Amino acid sequence: MKNYTHKKKNAKQSNKLELDSFFSKGVEKMRASDIRDALKLVEGKRIISFAGGLPDPETFPREEIRDIINMLEYSDFSSSFQYGATLGMIGLRKELANFVSKRGIINVDEDNILVSAGSQEAIYILCFLLLNPGDDIIVEAPTYVAALNAMRLKNPVLHGIPLKNNGMDIEELERELKEIEAKGRKIKFIYTIPSSQNPSGITMSMENRKKLLKIAEEHNILIIEDDAYGFLGFDGDTPDAIKSLDTNGRVIYTSTFSKILAPGFRLGWVVANPEIILKMELLKQSIDLHSSTFTQRIALETLRRGVIERNIPKVRKLYKEKRDVMVKSIRRWFPKDVKYRVPNGGMFIFVWLDSRIDTRELLPEAVKRGVAFVPGAGFYHDDSGKNTMRLNFSQPSIREIEEGIKVLGTLIKDKAV
Amino acid sequence: MKNYTHKKKNAKQSNKLELDSFFSKGVEKMRASDIRDALKLVEGKRIISFAGGLPDPETFPREEIRDIINMLEYSDFSSSFQYGATLGMIGLRKELANFVSKRGIINVDEDNILVSAGSQEAIYILCFLLLNPGDDIIVEAPTYVAALNAMRLKNPVLHGIPLKNNGMDIEELERELKEIEAKGRKIKFIYTIPSSQNPSGITMSMENRKKLLKIAEEHNILIIEDDAYGFLGFDGDTPDAIKSLDTNGRVIYTSTFSKILAPGFRLGWVVANPEIILKMELLKQSIDLHSSTFTQRIALETLRRGVIERNIPKVRKLYKEKRDVMVKSIRRWFPKDVKYRVPNGGMFIFVWLDSRIDTRELLPEAVKRGVAFVPGAGFYHDDSGKNTMRLNFSQPSIREIEEGIKVLGTLIKDKAV
Repeated sequence: MKNYTHKKKNAKQSNKLELDSFFSKGVEKMRASDIRDALKLVEGKRIISFAGGLPDPETFPREEIRDIINMLEYSDFSSSFQYGATLGMIGLRKELANFVSKRGIINVDEDNILVSAGSQEAIYILCFLLLNPGDDIIVEAPTYVAALNAMRLKNPVLHGIPLKNNGMDIEELERELKEIEAKGRKIKFIYTIPSSQNPSGITMSMENRKKLLKIAEEHNILIIEDDAYGFLGFDGDTPDAIKSLDTNGRVIYTSTFSKILAPGFRLGWVVANPEIILKMELLKQSIDLHSSTFTQRIALETLRRGVIERNIPKVRKLYKEKRDVMVKSIRRWFPKDVKYRVPNGGMFIFVWLDSRIDTRELLPEAVKRGVAFVPGAGFYHDDSGKNTMRLNFSQPSIREIEEGIKVLGTLIKDKAV
Repeated sequence: MKNYTHKKKNAKQSNKLELDSFFSKGVEKMRASDIRDALKLVEGKRIISFAGGLPDPETFPREEIRDIINMLEYSDFSSSFQYGATLGMIGLRKELANFVSKRGIINVDEDNILVSAGSQEAIYILCFLLLNPGDDIIVEAPTYVAALNAMRLKNPVLHGIPLKNNGMDIEELERELKEIEAKGRKIKFIYTIPSSQNPSGITMSMENRKKLLKIAEEHNILIIEDDAYGFLGFDGDTPDAIKSLDTNGRVIYTSTFSKILAPGFRLGWVVANPEIILKMELLKQSIDLHSSTFTQRIALETLRRGVIERNIPKVRKLYKEKRDVMVKSIRRWFPKDVKYRVPNGGMFIFVWLDSRIDTRELLPEAVKRGVAFVPGAGFYHDDSGKNTMRLNFSQPSIREIEEGIKVLGTLIKDKAV
């Protein structure tokens, strides 16, 4: 293809292009997350990282997936290397409609399911479909930072409801709703991560799930239920999904293969009213046509063969052990006045330090001592929570947890003096 | 997880939710494409389909990919099943920076590359980043329908420039620009598919590529170059990419693995100014975090091992053969007054019929006779081109092409009477 003789190819930036003038309004406000900043600090360094949100690779059923791929026929390759339906592979959607019964969601079929690129894409699509600029929405405070960033692309008014030991503070929610509605405004949706929440680790009680749905009914609000950690409860069972209580399609449920199979497959799914699924499908078509058919094909087999079903207890066991070590280490090394809740599942412990400590300032010092975490403020819709930090226990080894928490505890104590 | 005793789970739709009130402005205008409608007509029927845009599965290097996966170590599985960088795997970005030299693009490195979910996601992200509602943009008429749909999400004013045998009609472009600027308006970007265009099959000459870039410089306009078919030129070499001529980052180049490896991997890439790459990265993070690390890992190996390099000539040979059969069949069976250009690459032939024929009306009749195509109007920004059709030759077999074109030609002749 080298027939042409334009020799001055790609000379370095001669007449500088003023790119800023080309970007659309609001693009300048897009921001990298604290997690990302924390991970950049860590890049290339030998460091104990509590900053990521990564599964332990030991939880990936590698052997089983290799077997699955080896058993795929050439004809399977032909179809799973090909373009596919935007909604996702029909076989996978059927399996998922069945799989979510583990979260109490029954009476759904493939028409209620869309396969997305992780639950992230589902959240992004929902924000795009549901939000006009200036719309009011409710989130937990703190909440998942990448969901906040997806929401912010639509410039909504974010209202944060604090968390209690049994999840979203329902009284505070009712008070806030009253206040918002008194101003003639209306909440579009409530975004909640009711099970082993990211970042707090808190699980909403069944009682509160029922109350939340009742409130949503009364005020005519949609609920987006992010159940990313719903399959990862360690201590007894996690309450069934809010979606399991839903009788009229008010709850849009999303979950992911990232924590129970492999994040690298970029697969999640939505359970919702078919009318919502169809709108999501239309938007997804413009975004990426569909999610990887090859990884969908593998995920389908892991469901069919019970690979995921057998994997979940192993994941729970491993993370429970790591959580226990982290809790024990925090008890031993952190100052006695720090606050945290022992999470009953998931991958994170969230810690409130002495209110005079700013964890964003603490981070570079921690990294110098060889430990990383994520400052908690980024998880708050209003950037409060300066004195908080999120600690991930799924990825680091047990030894790293012991060592890293000791280093971090010592640093915090140094600061507190 | 079945401890809870709320028995009225998911009863079918009791109090009907008025969903329309929840969707954001403009969502009601989102539309399914004609392609999709055509594919739905075909669903489950034994039919000869010229409607899709699917590669021939014979072009998927299945054996080589199986070998690659079998040679991956457990440690490779650990990393490629894990979360990855939003920009894409560094190794893949390096390989791609090298690979695009085949399209004349040199002096770029990994900082110029973002890995996307097919080129579709790249186009979506660029529309989101660059367009404010009401912005003026230029497209070819006809052009890729899924790009039009992504653009329409931002409510731009679309200006269509007709195609000539050597690509976009440059004189018409200059005239249109003069007219637009006389109104005090400004074009944000020109979207072009210069090589073996979808749907027209037309390739822009090197002379016109140079003229187009010069015009873009003079009028300070960005160019989005969609090079999806740039590696699939059959008849001599396809001119180097417009990006190869770009000295100041004005051209944003995108291409895809979908036509040279496997669409089911959902992988494409962008070559652009690092400033643009960074903005795209931020938005991609909110959309899907990153593209599949597993399929990226496989794609990386196919580049490293020359699998793609060896595959491209095979794809070209097969599609050239199919194109020749389709052209021959059209000559034989279609009315003599139809217009089309023999594409020098890609996967499509675009046909202009007698102006009294509406191909949307023709389609159901064609399907009844066992043949599907895509009505061409959907490829026009203004829904003109009622008498056009897009015929795909990459997917159907040679025999299907012969048979299907005969059926279609006979039907068209029946109509013309």
